[in-house]
Amino acid sequence: MQYTEAQILKVLADVFAQSDSRVIIGIGDDAALVNGSAQQILTTDLAIEGVHFRLDWSSAYEIGKRAAAANIADILSMNGKCDYLLVAAALTGRESIDWIRDLAQGIQDQAVSAGAVVIGGDLSQGEKFSLAITAVGSTDKAIKRSGAKVGDSIFLSSLTGWSAAGLEILTKILNPSGKEVATALNEYRAPTLDLATDFSAATSMSDVSDAIMIQGEQMAHASGVRFEIDCDEIALSEEFKDLSTLASQLGADVWSWILQGGEDHCLLATGTELPGIRIGFVVAGTGIGATRGGAEIKMAPVAWSHFSQD
Amino acid sequence: MQYTEAQILKVLADVFAQSDSRVIIGIGDDAALVNGSAQQILTTDLAIEGVHFRLDWSSAYEIGKRAAAANIADILSMNGKCDYLLVAAALTGRESIDWIRDLAQGIQDQAVSAGAVVIGGDLSQGEKFSLAITAVGSTDKAIKRSGAKVGDSIFLSSLTGWSAAGLEILTKILNPSGKEVATALNEYRAPTLDLATDFSAATSMSDVSDAIMIQGEQMAHASGVRFEIDCDEIALSEEFKDLSTLASQLGADVWSWILQGGEDHCLLATGTELPGIRIGFVVAGTGIGATRGGAEIKMAPVAWSHFSQD
Repeated sequence: MQYTEAQILKVLADVFAQSDSRVIIGIGDDAALVNGSAQQILTTDLAIEGVHFRLDWSSAYEIGKRAAAANIADILSMNGKCDYLLVAAALTGRESIDWIRDLAQGIQDQAVSAGAVVIGGDLSQGEKFSLAITAVGSTDKAIKRSGAKVGDSIFLSSLTGWSAAGLEILTKILNPSGKEVATALNEYRAPTLDLATDFSAATSMSDVSDAIMIQGEQMAHASGVRFEIDCDEIALSEEFKDLSTLASQLGADVWSWILQGGEDHCLLATGTELPGIRIGFVVAGTGIGATRGGAEIKMAPVAWSHFSQD
Repeated sequence: MQYTEAQILKVLADVFAQSDSRVIIGIGDDAALVNGSAQQILTTDLAIEGVHFRLDWSSAYEIGKRAAAANIADILSMNGKCDYLLVAAALTGRESIDWIRDLAQGIQDQAVSAGAVVIGGDLSQGEKFSLAITAVGSTDKAIKRSGAKVGDSIFLSSLTGWSAAGLEILTKILNPSGKEVATALNEYRAPTLDLATDFSAATSMSDVSDAIMIQGEQMAHASGVRFEIDCDEIALSEEFKDLSTLASQLGADVWSWILQGGEDHCLLATGTELPGIRIGFVVAGTGIGATRGGAEIKMAPVAWSHFSQD
């Protein structure tokens, strides 16, 4: 270990230094004290090296940005605004102080982009680097997964599949060319949050942390309806052309990326008239299906669960 | 793996099922939605198998109870009441479903004892079992570490050292006898929270997660004063006799346990007249010292940091 705990805390205090009138007691006491709100949204995620990210695929900055994004997206998906982040990290002792600074900066930049402030955390040691982030948000009108109504359309805040494309490039050690490559790798390594998309008129909403086919099915189930995804609608979106070009180049199935890929952290919502990409409609029934040219697409089951049954 | 993620989630939903009017949306959506409060206290901790606990020393129930205690104590130490817990766990796949249920029950029992409700979390997989808990509390009047005044007395909500005693018994594989043994082992495995102690009139406060000599020094530093611990005062406390009996039996230094032991999660506070055990006084100066029979105690430096310098 090339540094003391005090040196790390100093670096973190520098990176996370942010004067914010909402914060009454920040980093340094037993806990943080902040201005609350009437209705508060809370979510937490634990990400572990080798399971949720690989150190040879992502920089410290990207790992921080991505972990923060995953939590902030859960707040956005409830129609909330992210106010605060808490960050607990286990370091192995092999990280350099610059690596730790970059990690913190990734978290900080994502927090600032969402209007949130890092108010505290915990530092410990472990065999694997791991990162547990908690996000705290507020809302005037929470949107659940369960409000989808027959007759609603289904919308995406932006096209899914980019993260899956990036993962495929890294997994298969491919070297495609074109501007789409950077987008795919960036979206895998540090997904962009759709902060500007106004889905406040949605009847139901979730973020696509797993896959459209999983999240959509959960929303359909919670709402007592069926989701029909129309791939012809998706193919009309501007982004689709770029993603499709990349898939052709790699000999990959673009629909598998879009429908079954995870970790894009786009927002999936239902409603009558919403911004973003219209991707289908809500009908009577149960479950979720996807059609292309009027015919149902058969897909292998998505095995995106953290636990596989044997 | 003997179970699916859905089965685990069912078990957790059963254990954490708690009708609570403060919770608007509980476990099952992207995030939890709860009633907030004007001033909110937030804290998080990450505990990892082999670093923060050993599976052969503590039961799943104790690990859960202890991790929850560590977080709740941080809320109490700000003069807060714990309202909500979020729990993120990484399972290795080797845990049985009963083990997971016991872990959840330990967290739940500690939460209920403090008047808190478990509102959500995250489940993932890792090589080591780890547990990240976030506690959310509220207060009308937060008490910081920095308010100690010259002339104040120093108080403990209950005697520290029991957890260190328990750890010594387990580490050295000792088999002492007497009722104190169970207390020590229990306090190490699942510390009791001092929920009934009213320290709301304190001028400064912290919980003793590390050690009196560390936490006291931090409070003294933050307050711009010096802490003088009077061991003769501590020796008058009822609990001291029991802990001292155990130390004698083990040939251990009871003062090292009390002053340099960690993880008791008692409250350390300053003020003019507080309940609990009076253990010293606040004077002009800097740092912390401990005297016994009027003479200063020399202690080896406490190496309780999670990071050691080489």
